Amino acid sequence: MEDFNLSTMPYKGTRDFYPDEMRIRNWFYSVIKNVLDKYVYEEYNGPMLESFDIYAAKSGVEIVEEQTYNFNDKSNRRLAIRPEMTPTVARMVAAKLEQLTLPLRWFSIANLLRYEKPQRGRVREHWQVNVDMFGVWSLKSDLEIISIAVDLMKAFKADASMFKVKINNRKFFNEVLMKVLKVEKSRVQEVSKVIDKKGKIASEDFKKWLMDLGFDEEKVIELNSIFEIKDFNGIDKLFTDSTEDLPGRNELTELFALIKEVGLAEYCEFDFSVIRGFDYYTGTVFEVNDKSPKNRRALFGGGRYDNLIEMFKKGSNVTGIGFGFGDVTLKDFLETHNLIPENLNENKSVLISVFPNVPYSFYLELSKELHENGIGNIIYMGDNLKLKKQMLFAERKNISTMIIVGDDEFSTKMVNIKMLNQKKEIKLQRDCYLDELKDILGIAKK
Amino acid sequence: MEDFNLSTMPYKGTRDFYPDEMRIRNWFYSVIKNVLDKYVYEEYNGPMLESFDIYAAKSGVEIVEEQTYNFNDKSNRRLAIRPEMTPTVARMVAAKLEQLTLPLRWFSIANLLRYEKPQRGRVREHWQVNVDMFGVWSLKSDLEIISIAVDLMKAFKADASMFKVKINNRKFFNEVLMKVLKVEKSRVQEVSKVIDKKGKIASEDFKKWLMDLGFDEEKVIELNSIFEIKDFNGIDKLFTDSTEDLPGRNELTELFALIKEVGLAEYCEFDFSVIRGFDYYTGTVFEVNDKSPKNRRALFGGGRYDNLIEMFKKGSNVTGIGFGFGDVTLKDFLETHNLIPENLNENKSVLISVFPNVPYSFYLELSKELHENGIGNIIYMGDNLKLKKQMLFAERKNISTMIIVGDDEFSTKMVNIKMLNQKKEIKLQRDCYLDELKDILGIAKK
Repeated sequence: MEDFNLSTMPYKGTRDFYPDEMRIRNWFYSVIKNVLDKYVYEEYNGPMLESFDIYAAKSGVEIVEEQTYNFNDKSNRRLAIRPEMTPTVARMVAAKLEQLTLPLRWFSIANLLRYEKPQRGRVREHWQVNVDMFGVWSLKSDLEIISIAVDLMKAFKADASMFKVKINNRKFFNEVLMKVLKVEKSRVQEVSKVIDKKGKIASEDFKKWLMDLGFDEEKVIELNSIFEIKDFNGIDKLFTDSTEDLPGRNELTELFALIKEVGLAEYCEFDFSVIRGFDYYTGTVFEVNDKSPKNRRALFGGGRYDNLIEMFKKGSNVTGIGFGFGDVTLKDFLETHNLIPENLNENKSVLISVFPNVPYSFYLELSKELHENGIGNIIYMGDNLKLKKQMLFAERKNISTMIIVGDDEFSTKMVNIKMLNQKKEIKLQRDCYLDELKDILGIAKK
Repeated sequence: MEDFNLSTMPYKGTRDFYPDEMRIRNWFYSVIKNVLDKYVYEEYNGPMLESFDIYAAKSGVEIVEEQTYNFNDKSNRRLAIRPEMTPTVARMVAAKLEQLTLPLRWFSIANLLRYEKPQRGRVREHWQVNVDMFGVWSLKSDLEIISIAVDLMKAFKADASMFKVKINNRKFFNEVLMKVLKVEKSRVQEVSKVIDKKGKIASEDFKKWLMDLGFDEEKVIELNSIFEIKDFNGIDKLFTDSTEDLPGRNELTELFALIKEVGLAEYCEFDFSVIRGFDYYTGTVFEVNDKSPKNRRALFGGGRYDNLIEMFKKGSNVTGIGFGFGDVTLKDFLETHNLIPENLNENKSVLISVFPNVPYSFYLELSKELHENGIGNIIYMGDNLKLKKQMLFAERKNISTMIIVGDDEFSTKMVNIKMLNQKKEIKLQRDCYLDELKDILGIAKK
């Protein structure tokens, strides 16, 4: 072995998941999968490495060069470690479009790597849940995706006082800019970019940037008043001609009507400042926001995109709507609202004590018997067989039940069940202790 | 969007997991986790990127340069995408050695990337289960790890006719070379390397290589006769002095005695050719082999290693024993023996048919009611609402139950349950159809 000076720290911006952390992550997934199962979303996954081009085609070469881990392989293929799942899933859908029956309801749970400055809620490696529906243009699919987002939050026991789904529509957004604020078509994109940054810059700068783009004082006030609107019904008076047929306005009207019908109104509101940065959104966009003043920001978001499959398959016209959901922001939210259950570290298994004068094969048989009855168990393996040591070990592993068969119990065919939490012990016959043990552990009997 | 010529193929040696494949992978994990739960192994995970050095320290700079994806980040840190989990877990254990209570029983399920020529059973990205126990020197831990390996195979319904655990011991291996075959200590490593390659080269070449290392004809025959021994008891007559105290022989003797005691003898045999390549194994080594003539090779393997934690924490003396288990070889094995259940694609959810004259909000309510009763469901979202089309969609999604509420049923408060497989339909009242539906789907009633 050569001599290296090895650090025990994980690489900057990445995390080690020790069992305690892993239990939390696994709990996240079980809650999430339970909701997605009910909506019959199917899990997929893809490679950790992809061609650099699939990200560059979507986001531009420069951004991908800067924000991903990318390199050439030995055959000079340019690769990137996936920074997001969307290009992968678009590629997969495009590859099998003929065989797949639309609509697809798909989700994935995957680790992603971005080259960014680590900060609260932003790490270099995070785990993201991606939920997407492909192939439905109807607003009913937008409703389904938003319903899933709300159900996920509710499954984590979050209520309407803790989060809000803020909804906008990119077509509608452009209509307001052009019809209400009279922004020239050629300037719509520039203005959008400024509005997208609104939450991150001082209101003075925001105003200045808008005025640089041709807004006058009055229009800035008008725009700010639009940001105040939370109930979508309030929007109609903005338009001088309320009967004009505007596709974006129609979509939002229909979506909010559906939201009310299905009883989600208390969780949702209109928010004109929600754009979700990416250029590829084409209709509904939404964000789930934490309402806590300590943590006020977007937990996750998503929207409708129409041309991602086309990147891979020219002329295909498959629309998608979905969202992505990172483990770091989720954990921040759940911690802020005290929603992580305390019993995740509870250990429903038993420790089998070992004594020197009992044949070891007896303990092996006992362990097997417990396995066959669905009872997780560990045979004590320390060198020091003092009962105190064995109890200490159980305690440190959060195990609260011990099976004790010493010389006496072995020769009289008895079993001692020791309940460490209750400082209680019961002695039972070797051929009839299992039901009692299952009761103590809270395991269903066959 | 710039113009790229994008391929829909995944990167060479990596795989897309469409839902059908993903269901198989998830089934693997659920079987594996169920076994590991019983033995109370705790799940951990670590970063996808690690310092290049932690692999180089274990396997040498050249091998890591050649066999991993490695590169420098923008701050000139040399990184590698993890090709294996062992260095990561050793780093994690070393980092928290003071806080952790030994023994640790840990496992992980992680994707790994190796730069190698793709071939059957060898891909560039695979998913590996790693199972390790840290901190127990007793052979009882070797027994536990081998028991887990056997129980995993049995949990996949493999029996003794399909696989065999081949066991050896590195100390014992050296003892045989030196005491029986009289190999000089300085040549032990070279001879080991030749024996490690035995399965992959012609027997003539094997002989020639050994003779180049100083073996005569007689010794080659003697070595070959050792390879024939399957029952460990047969080994003793090889040693001229059977009472000599040889630590490796003692370990193997004790391990085989334990294997017999716990009833695993039918699954296990001695095999002197098992070395498991890596230099870091120090005691027990084993391989689980497929017995099928179509697929005769090691499914997975592992062994005991004593100095991996020391790489990170000088002077620490924590022993480990474990194995790794890849998804590709596992799938090959299960396919060869026809052990993948056919019902993985069965869909226990229902399709809610949609008809134009029934208010959509009714279907939304119905869907919610089913969700609340633990019944997965999809509301049909196609544009074409002909019943035939809706049935076709259900069929393609492997959904065999439809809920049909047309105009008539809606106005008379009835619900039709259509069982597509049995070409049967039953009509029930809207307020009492749930129990019947659960029976049909095989879902437990509350």
